[in-house]
Amino acid sequence: VVEKLTTSLGEYERRARGLLPSELFDRWFGSRDDPLWLTNTNNVDGYDRVFLRPRVLAAEPAVGLSTAVLGIDVDSPVYLAPAGAQGRFNPEAELASARAARSAGTIFALSSASTYSMEEVREVSDGPLLFQLYVLKDRGLTSELVKRAENAGYAAIIVTVDEPATRSGERDGASNALRESRQPKGLKSHTPTTPFGNLRGTGINSEEDMLDAMEARLNWAVIDWIRGITDLPLIIKGIQVPEDARLAVDHGAQAVVVSNHGGHSLNGAYPTILSMPEIVDAVAGEAEVHLDGGIRRGTDVLKALGLGARAVAIGRGMYWGLAVGGEGGVKEVLDVLQEELYLACLFCSVTDIRAVDRTLVRLPR
Amino acid sequence: VVEKLTTSLGEYERRARGLLPSELFDRWFGSRDDPLWLTNTNNVDGYDRVFLRPRVLAAEPAVGLSTAVLGIDVDSPVYLAPAGAQGRFNPEAELASARAARSAGTIFALSSASTYSMEEVREVSDGPLLFQLYVLKDRGLTSELVKRAENAGYAAIIVTVDEPATRSGERDGASNALRESRQPKGLKSHTPTTPFGNLRGTGINSEEDMLDAMEARLNWAVIDWIRGITDLPLIIKGIQVPEDARLAVDHGAQAVVVSNHGGHSLNGAYPTILSMPEIVDAVAGEAEVHLDGGIRRGTDVLKALGLGARAVAIGRGMYWGLAVGGEGGVKEVLDVLQEELYLACLFCSVTDIRAVDRTLVRLPR
Amino acid sequence: VVEKLTTSLGEYERRARGLLPSELFDRWFGSRDDPLWLTNTNNVDGYDRVFLRPRVLAAEPAVGLSTAVLGIDVDSPVYLAPAGAQGRFNPEAELASARAARSAGTIFALSSASTYSMEEVREVSDGPLLFQLYVLKDRGLTSELVKRAENAGYAAIIVTVDEPATRSGERDGASNALRESRQPKGLKSHTPTTPFGNLRGTGINSEEDMLDAMEARLNWAVIDWIRGITDLPLIIKGIQVPEDARLAVDHGAQAVVVSNHGGHSLNGAYPTILSMPEIVDAVAGEAEVHLDGGIRRGTDVLKALGLGARAVAIGRGMYWGLAVGGEGGVKEVLDVLQEELYLACLFCSVTDIRAVDRTLVRLPR
Amino acid sequence: VVEKLTTSLGEYERRARGLLPSELFDRWFGSRDDPLWLTNTNNVDGYDRVFLRPRVLAAEPAVGLSTAVLGIDVDSPVYLAPAGAQGRFNPEAELASARAARSAGTIFALSSASTYSMEEVREVSDGPLLFQLYVLKDRGLTSELVKRAENAGYAAIIVTVDEPATRSGERDGASNALRESRQPKGLKSHTPTTPFGNLRGTGINSEEDMLDAMEARLNWAVIDWIRGITDLPLIIKGIQVPEDARLAVDHGAQAVVVSNHGGHSLNGAYPTILSMPEIVDAVAGEAEVHLDGGIRRGTDVLKALGLGARAVAIGRGMYWGLAVGGEGGVKEVLDVLQEELYLACLFCSVTDIRAVDRTLVRLPR
Repeated sequence: VVEKLTTSLGEYERRARGLLPSELFDRWFGSRDDPLWLTNTNNVDGYDRVFLRPRVLAAEPAVGLSTAVLGIDVDSPVYLAPAGAQGRFNPEAELASARAARSAGTIFALSSASTYSMEEVREVSDGPLLFQLYVLKDRGLTSELVKRAENAGYAAIIVTVDEPATRSGERDGASNALRESRQPKGLKSHTPTTPFGNLRGTGINSEEDMLDAMEARLNWAVIDWIRGITDLPLIIKGIQVPEDARLAVDHGAQAVVVSNHGGHSLNGAYPTILSMPEIVDAVAGEAEVHLDGGIRRGTDVLKALGLGARAVAIGRGMYWGLAVGGEGGVKEVLDVLQEELYLACLFCSVTDIRAVDRTLVRLPR
Repeated sequence: VVEKLTTSLGEYERRARGLLPSELFDRWFGSRDDPLWLTNTNNVDGYDRVFLRPRVLAAEPAVGLSTAVLGIDVDSPVYLAPAGAQGRFNPEAELASARAARSAGTIFALSSASTYSMEEVREVSDGPLLFQLYVLKDRGLTSELVKRAENAGYAAIIVTVDEPATRSGERDGASNALRESRQPKGLKSHTPTTPFGNLRGTGINSEEDMLDAMEARLNWAVIDWIRGITDLPLIIKGIQVPEDARLAVDHGAQAVVVSNHGGHSLNGAYPTILSMPEIVDAVAGEAEVHLDGGIRRGTDVLKALGLGARAVAIGRGMYWGLAVGGEGGVKEVLDVLQEELYLACLFCSVTDIRAVDRTLVRLPR
Repeated sequence: VVEKLTTSLGEYERRARGLLPSELFDRWFGSRDDPLWLTNTNNVDGYDRVFLRPRVLAAEPAVGLSTAVLGIDVDSPVYLAPAGAQGRFNPEAELASARAARSAGTIFALSSASTYSMEEVREVSDGPLLFQLYVLKDRGLTSELVKRAENAGYAAIIVTVDEPATRSGERDGASNALRESRQPKGLKSHTPTTPFGNLRGTGINSEEDMLDAMEARLNWAVIDWIRGITDLPLIIKGIQVPEDARLAVDHGAQAVVVSNHGGHSLNGAYPTILSMPEIVDAVAGEAEVHLDGGIRRGTDVLKALGLGARAVAIGRGMYWGLAVGGEGGVKEVLDVLQEELYLACLFCSVTDIRAVDRTLVRLPR
Repeated sequence: VVEKLTTSLGEYERRARGLLPSELFDRWFGSRDDPLWLTNTNNVDGYDRVFLRPRVLAAEPAVGLSTAVLGIDVDSPVYLAPAGAQGRFNPEAELASARAARSAGTIFALSSASTYSMEEVREVSDGPLLFQLYVLKDRGLTSELVKRAENAGYAAIIVTVDEPATRSGERDGASNALRESRQPKGLKSHTPTTPFGNLRGTGINSEEDMLDAMEARLNWAVIDWIRGITDLPLIIKGIQVPEDARLAVDHGAQAVVVSNHGGHSLNGAYPTILSMPEIVDAVAGEAEVHLDGGIRRGTDVLKALGLGARAVAIGRGMYWGLAVGGEGGVKEVLDVLQEELYLACLFCSVTDIRAVDRTLVRLPR
C-alpha cells in the first residue's frame, strides 16, 4: 500500500515558497528573520532534541500504521489540522484537502474559518471529519454551528482555546503589504464573496468581522456550555501545560491537542514535543493526547507517538501541498509522512504503532 | 486604549542604525563583532532560555497592565531607564522622553548625566519622575542634587552602584573616532554648552570632568549617608548577586534594580533575567525587584514579572525611539512593549500582571 | 613503523568530493543540506562532546597499538567496515581495500553486496577477513554464502540487522539522478556484469533484485538459525540500545557493532559514541563491543576505546581512500588513523591500548 | 600606574595576522578551519561558560593587583609563558619579551628552545626569570642546563611534561610550506646560526635535532631526578587531571601549570579553565596552581584567580606583541591585560586579587 518516496515536506516547502507571493508565504509560514516565528522554529528544532531508540530483530510480518482516533479507525496517525482560509492557496481549498485525507485513509479537520462550508466539504468526502469551533460572542450562532456539524456527520468538535481573538499588529502590517501585492506568482487562488464559508449570511464578511465576532473571554464555563449542547466528543486544542490538560479531562474532553498554534499565537512558546511527557502524565490515560507543530518527518511522528500521542496533526504541510498541487499535493504530503513513518517503524522494529511507549524514546537530559 | 502594533523594537533598532553615525551607534549599542558587548547579547539571549507556560480558558473581562511601582500607580510595568546624554540622539533629549513616559502612563527616570536638568524635565511633565544619582566626591554637591530632586517632586532616588567611575579605554578609543566623525546622517543632535544639565555652574563640563568628579569608592557607608539625607525611597541599581540584594534591603533600599548596566560595565556578565530567581528569593518580598537589560519584546517583560520583577526598565529602546522620532518615537516604543505585553497576557490567560508568579515560567534546567 | 603524517581524513574527504560526481558523493556521503544525513553529522559531532583525560609522566618504552579482535592479532584497532559496491569508487574495489588492510596489519570486512566475490578477495589477501551477511529470503542461498565464507577462511560472520531491506525513496530519487549523470570526473569505476560478486549466477543482478532478495523480517530466530549453521564467531552489527546488546550476547554473539549504518538507515539516530557506555555496561564483558560511525581522527578512536570498544570500523574513510588513490589511498587512510592514534596515546601516556578504561574519558554531563 | 586602554589582545591578533606570513601564523596560532586547533578554541570558549559574580559597594582605597608567585613579588598575576623560537617573530626575540616583562613588573619564563640563551636574557633583565626545561636524553646536558639556570639567577625550573617529543605530521606539512615561503610581509626575523641559543655547541642545530634530543619517555622518576639535582622550586607544566596534580605535589613540585600546551599537543583537549576546580581541590593548597591557554581578557584572568589560580601565563598574546611591536608590543599586551584586570576588579569590588575565591565565580551547570 505504501508507495515509493520521491520527495519530502522540506521539498514541498521549497516549492511552495517559489510559488507563493513572498508576503503571503512569510505571513503564513514565517521566516528565520522574523522573531514572531521563533515558536515555530522551536517546535521544529524540538524534535532534534528527542532521539529514537531503535530496536532490532523484532520484525513481524507487517508494520501496522492504522490506529483509532476517538474511536475512528484510520490508516495513519497523521491527520489534517483545522487550518483556515485554504482558498488563499488553492481554489479547491478544503474540498481538495478533505478529498486527500479521505483517500489517505485519515481524518480531515475543518476550521470554522474555512473557505468552504462544512456541508460543502461533507458533500465531497464520506471520510471522517472533525469540526473546529471558534466560540463566537453570539452563542446562538455558535450553537447553530455545532448543530450543523452534528447534522453533517462530523465526528467531534475541536474547541480552539489559544486564539484570544487578537492578532499581533506586526503581522497585520505584513497583511497590509499582502493586500497591496496580490499578484500570486502562477497561483490561482479562490476569491469567494465571503472568506468564511460556514458563516455566509451572518454578516461576517472579513477577517476584521471575524475577530470582532469571536469570543475573547474564553473560560471553562464556556467549555461546560459546549459540553452541554452536544453529545459529540470534545477536543480541546491549544493545551501547553499539564494543569490545563487535567482541567480539560475534568471538564469532559475526550482529547486534548498539545499545540501552540504553530507558533502563530504566543511568540517564543515551548516546543510542543517537549511538553508531551508531563501532559501525558497529567492526562493519565483518561483522554487522548494529540500534538501539532513542527512535524516535518516520519521520525517526528514516531517520536510523538513514543511520548504518548495518539495522533498528530499537520498544518503547514497541508498548505504547501495545496499550493503546489491541490488535492494531489496534499495527498502526496500525507503519503510522504506515512511512508516515512513506515520506514521509521521498520528501522525501529515497531510492528504496531498502537503499542509504542516511552522506551522508544531518549529524552534530552 | 491599546492601539494596533505595526512595528517592533527590532524595527526601531534597524531604523536607528540607519540614522546614526556608526561610531555612535556602535559605542552606545554595540555590535556583534565587539566582545565588549557580549554582556548585552547575553542579556538578550537569556530571555530565550526562559519559557512562558501559557494557561488557557481563564479569561476575565479585561487584562490589567497597571501596577504600582514604589507606591506610584502606573499604566504599565515598563519604565524608562535613567540613561544619560540623550541630547546626542535628539535635541529634545530627556524632555521628549519624559513627555513620552507621561503620555504612556509610566515613569521616567532621569540620569545625573542628563542633557537637560531635573527642573527642566519637571517643567514639561507632571508625571512620575525618579532621579538617578551618581555619587560625587563632592558630597555637598551630591546632597544638593538630592535636595533639588526632592524639591522638584522626584519620587525616589536611584543610586547606581555598578559604575566605578572608570571606562574601558577600548571604548574610549571608539569615542575618539566618534569625535572625528561628528556628521550625523540626517540626525539633529543637541550641543549644549555643558553636556550635563544638572551640573551647570559646577565646573563639570565634559565627560572627563564627570569621571573625575564621580566617587570611585562606593561602599555601604555611602548608601547609609544617602539614606540619612533624604526621606525619598531609595533604589539601588546594579545588583547582580543575592548577597548584595540582601544587603541593599538591610541598608534601607525600597527597591533593587537587577542590572549589569546594559553590558556597559563588566564584560561577559550573567544575563540579568537568569539572575532573577535567586535575587528575588534573597529579597524575600521586603523590597521591590526591578530589572533592566535586553528587554526587546512584551514576552520578555512578562517573563521578568513571572520571575518576580515589579517593573522593568528600558534603555536602548528609548534611545532608538529618540533617534528615530523624538517624543513620538519613544512613545511608540513604549506602546509597542505595552501592546506586546497585553498580547502575551492574553495568550497566557493573565488577567492582572500583579498576580503573576513563577508558575508562569519554565526555567532552564 | 609509523610514518610521518602529511594528510588527514578531512583532506581525503575534500579530495574525494572534488573527484566524484556530486550525485554519487551526496548519495553516499551526504551533505549538510540534506536532513537524511543528520545522523552522520550527529555521529561525527558526538566525539566533540567526549573529552580525553590526558595523563602525563607515565611513559613506557613503547606505545602498543596492537590488540586482538575476536582472537585475531592485529596491529591496530581500526578495521575496514563491510561497505558494499566499492566498484563504484575504484575498479580494483574490494581487492584494493583488502590489500590495504593486510598491509596495514588489520582486518578487512567484506560486504555481501561487494563488487568482487569473497573468493576473489581471499585470492589477493592472506590477511584476516570477516564476511558480512545480509540474510536472504532464500535460506539455502544464505547458508551457502556462510559455507563459502568458511571455506575461504573468513574468520567471522557479521550479521547486519539494521537494514530492513527498504531504502528511503528520497535517496532513490537521488539515485535516479545518479544514473543519468554517470560521467565521473576523472574517476575510473568498475562496471561488472553483475554488481554483486558474491551472487553471480543467482539471478540477483541489480540493486532492486537485491532489495527483493533480502529478508525484511529479521528476528532473533534468524540469528539462532545462523548460530546453528556455522561455528564461526558471530558479530551482530547495528545495535543501538543496551537491551539489544544483551540479547545479542544471550543469542551467542561474540561481538556487537554499535552502529546506525553511518546514518544511512534511521534519520536522526543517536551518536554511536554516546551510546557506548550503557551498551558496554549491558554486555558486561561477555562479548566484544565494536563501534562505527563518524570516526575521523585518532582521538576519536581513543575515545571509543576508552569507552570500552575493542575495535572501531571505518566506512566513509575507506571509500574516500579508494576514490582518491585505490589501494594506496586506503592504506594511507589507515596509516593516518594509526599515526594519529599513536600520537593521541603519546599525549595521554597510554602505553597499551588494551589497558585503557573509562578513566581516560570525560563524558558529557 | 595603570594607563588608558586603547587596544586589546583581539586587536593585536588581527594586526599580527596582517603582518605575518599566513603559513607561520596558521602553524603557530591556528585557524578555525583546522581541527588541530580545536583545543585552543575550546580553551578560549571555556571562559564564556564561567561567569563572574560582581559584588558592589565594597570599594577600598585601591585595587591591588600585586601578588607573590613562588615567593616572588610581582605587580601582576599575568606572566609570560615559556614559548620558544621567538626569533621567528622579532629579531630581539626573548630579549624584547624579558625586558617587557621586567618593565611590567612581572615574570618572564624562558623556553629551553629559546632563540637567545638564558645568560643573554639575564644580561638584559634583572627581573624575575624562570627556566623551562625540556628533559633531554643526554642527562649530563640536561643537568648542565639546570646548573646554568641556577648560576644565572633563574628563580625556578619549569618542567614541561605534555610534549612527548613528537609533532603531528599534518603540522609538519604546514611547516614545509612555511620553509618554501619565507618572505615575511614586512617582518624582520632573526636567523641565528642555531635556532636554540641555550644549546650552542651541542650539535643540536635544527628542529629535527631537537626532537631527536628530547627525552620521549618522561615519567615520575625523571621528576625525582630533577628534584634531586637542584634546590630551585619545581613547576610541573602540562597537568590536565587532578590525579597528576596530586602526584606532582607528592613528587615535590612547588607549582603545577594547568595547560594543554595551548592546543598544540592533544587535539580536542578539555578547556583548561574548566579543569581548574577539581585540580585545585586535589592540590589542596600544598602547591600553587597556574594556568595557561586561551587568556584574552582581564576577565579571563579574574575568572582563573577566582577558581584558585595563583597566576596565569600568556603565550599567543606575547608572540602577537613581539610581531607587532617587539618589546613595546609585548609591554602593551601585558599592560592591556593588567588594565582590563584592574577594571574587572573594580566592577566586581575586588580590592586585593590575593583574596578572591570561588564565590566570585558562577560555574556552568
